[in-house]
Amino acid sequence: MRKIEHIGIAVKSLETSNLLFEKLFGNPPYKEEEVASEGVKTSFFMNGPNKIELLEATNPDSPIAKFLEKKGEGIHHIAFDVEDILSEIERLKKEGFIVLNETPKKGADNKLVAFLHPKGTNGVLVELCQEIS
Amino acid sequence: MRKIEHIGIAVKSLETSNLLFEKLFGNPPYKEEEVASEGVKTSFFMNGPNKIELLEATNPDSPIAKFLEKKGEGIHHIAFDVEDILSEIERLKKEGFIVLNETPKKGADNKLVAFLHPKGTNGVLVELCQEIS
Repeated sequence: MRKIEHIGIAVKSLETSNLLFEKLFGNPPYKEEEVASEGVKTSFFMNGPNKIELLEATNPDSPIAKFLEKKGEGIHHIAFDVEDILSEIERLKKEGFIVLNETPKKGADNKLVAFLHPKGTNGVLVELCQEIS
Repeated sequence: MRKIEHIGIAVKSLETSNLLFEKLFGNPPYKEEEVASEGVKTSFFMNGPNKIELLEATNPDSPIAKFLEKKGEGIHHIAFDVEDILSEIERLKKEGFIVLNETPKKGADNKLVAFLHPKGTNGVLVELCQEIS
């Protein structure tokens, strides 16, 4: 875990929230990307060594649609940058964390990602992400 | 806004969660600190250029006690590092954000802090923090 790679924020409308976060950071998003397998459209803002990812659901079965329905807009997950996602998954399993997908999957922004169950991390959805080289 | 300074996570027990986050990061907290004015005990973990702050309420009127009651354990706020908190407050007010305390107050970890109302930031409680030199 080398740094906070990004914070993921669930929003109802990417269009509206892009403008809002552009005002907050003073810069527009540097990219937008759809991840069809997760049912989301995303946008990314740079903030020094970190990023903010906004997530809008593209269908009602998307995990983000369910999150919005249950909790409303807000922080959805924290993603940590890891050098070697497979060894980090092994290490965290040994420490007793519940890894939701032991085989990393392709996420947004050219990353391999895996999630830890929030039950084991004080209610925080933790994402591990490794840059695909 | 130069980087994510820290993420604040509300927890029921600092003692229990310190052990949990030590397992997650592979390192113990580098400090613990009580902020009596906010009714919290905190601990801080380094994570590269960022920090994680755990927050436990020290009395039932503490904002953290109310957060835990309403939402349970989880992410409470994101704090961004700013060079000049007063000029950043002015800039954000002009952009239409609601600043909860226009006069920065002393927070944990040697910082001057101000908060933006989550109503204006997609449900995210945003903290600005400037290192006290």
